[in-house]
Amino acid sequence: MKSFSILASITLVFVSSRMIHTKDIDYSYSGITGPMFWADLEGSDEICSSGKYQSPIDIPQEEIHKFSKPDYVTFEDAENVEIVNNGHTIQISNKENILPATMKIGNDHYDLAQFHFHTPSEHLVDGKYFDVEVHFVFQTKEGNLSVIGIFYDVSKNQNDFLCPIIDNLPLKKNDSLLIEFIKLSSVLEDIDYMNQAYTYPGSLTTPPCSEGVIWWVNKIVQPISLKQYKQLRDVMGFNSRFPQVINY
Amino acid sequence: MKSFSILASITLVFVSSRMIHTKDIDYSYSGITGPMFWADLEGSDEICSSGKYQSPIDIPQEEIHKFSKPDYVTFEDAENVEIVNNGHTIQISNKENILPATMKIGNDHYDLAQFHFHTPSEHLVDGKYFDVEVHFVFQTKEGNLSVIGIFYDVSKNQNDFLCPIIDNLPLKKNDSLLIEFIKLSSVLEDIDYMNQAYTYPGSLTTPPCSEGVIWWVNKIVQPISLKQYKQLRDVMGFNSRFPQVINY
Repeated sequence: MKSFSILASITLVFVSSRMIHTKDIDYSYSGITGPMFWADLEGSDEICSSGKYQSPIDIPQEEIHKFSKPDYVTFEDAENVEIVNNGHTIQISNKENILPATMKIGNDHYDLAQFHFHTPSEHLVDGKYFDVEVHFVFQTKEGNLSVIGIFYDVSKNQNDFLCPIIDNLPLKKNDSLLIEFIKLSSVLEDIDYMNQAYTYPGSLTTPPCSEGVIWWVNKIVQPISLKQYKQLRDVMGFNSRFPQVINY
Repeated sequence: MKSFSILASITLVFVSSRMIHTKDIDYSYSGITGPMFWADLEGSDEICSSGKYQSPIDIPQEEIHKFSKPDYVTFEDAENVEIVNNGHTIQISNKENILPATMKIGNDHYDLAQFHFHTPSEHLVDGKYFDVEVHFVFQTKEGNLSVIGIFYDVSKNQNDFLCPIIDNLPLKKNDSLLIEFIKLSSVLEDIDYMNQAYTYPGSLTTPPCSEGVIWWVNKIVQPISLKQYKQLRDVMGFNSRFPQVINY
């Protein structure tokens, strides 16, 4: 077992460094570093343009009723997590470790590496978009990826889960802060334990647009107050890749 | 003068038929008829992909402070106008005639042909978007185009100008209704008589993406209530072309 642990550790380091590298690609959402040109950016991949399983997509209404879910999924509350403004999104992670959420798909065990936000939503449902989309990015020790997507729409109600995040938004690029407590456990309850999720094979929605990502886009839309939405949007701006063609 | 009038009438008929034809292009905002493929659609134009002056754009903050305005602009109240759901947007026009708004740029006289909506906004300002954008499309008798763009953001306040429009939204494609009165005159006052508008040479933001369009994007953002925004967005869905590269 010892050799396996060492191998796993090496793999984890490799995956972590790859994820840090991903952050370093100089991409944006308009102009010559915008989504049309992601394939050509240094450190990116031509799959951004040539890929057949790219994300996000416009999910047909009839498809999102064909629900599916992972074999197993858990979310536990998180303490002392880092919130970063990386210039592309607001991202929450545990600096030295994974976050306390897991997923099992077949024999593969996934841990939550980070979660981050997009305004407006990247996925559409039958041509309709939502004000915000959050992506919970899970990965196996081998670097396989699976993402849970949740929509938020402006409502009269404040979103309690988002409170510690919105209250600690790092306003400038490369700024980061520590959040003492995030009630991550409430996420699963909010989306009916993923009983209404649409799954499809896709990609990262940011360079290098890596494919092989198992997506779970939840139909249940969460509320966010107007104040919360504007605070988040003002910091991130427009960070939504246009919908990609469905090839299957 | 008579021969000029006849020529002008023929030109107007040509322009009108071209505009109707524009509506007939089978385009959308996702999938194989989405913005990436507009150049290849029947009735469209390769300029959608190859053009050097395409719209919308991400306006740099420093540019939107360099204000400019037409030599002359008037908006008068409109009666008995048609509101159409053309499957791409909600559009207001006067079925047999122009709308009562005019613009003068140099020696060219423009009349308001129609106005329509996009959710979310098509133009960005320094990477930031807005919840809604309206386009007032003006044209000369020769078919030259100029568009006034105005942003709307969800607020606690209802937008009175939009009330008769939102109250008469045609819910299905090809549905239309008659609106008795629209206080078009309030538009100019709302945007400080265009004293804070950014101008640039661009294109139609929909196929056939024709260039030579003089744009006036207003910095002053108008309020729209959450209810009004959701009613409009629910009918149109996502109808925003991604930002195009600035080549000048």
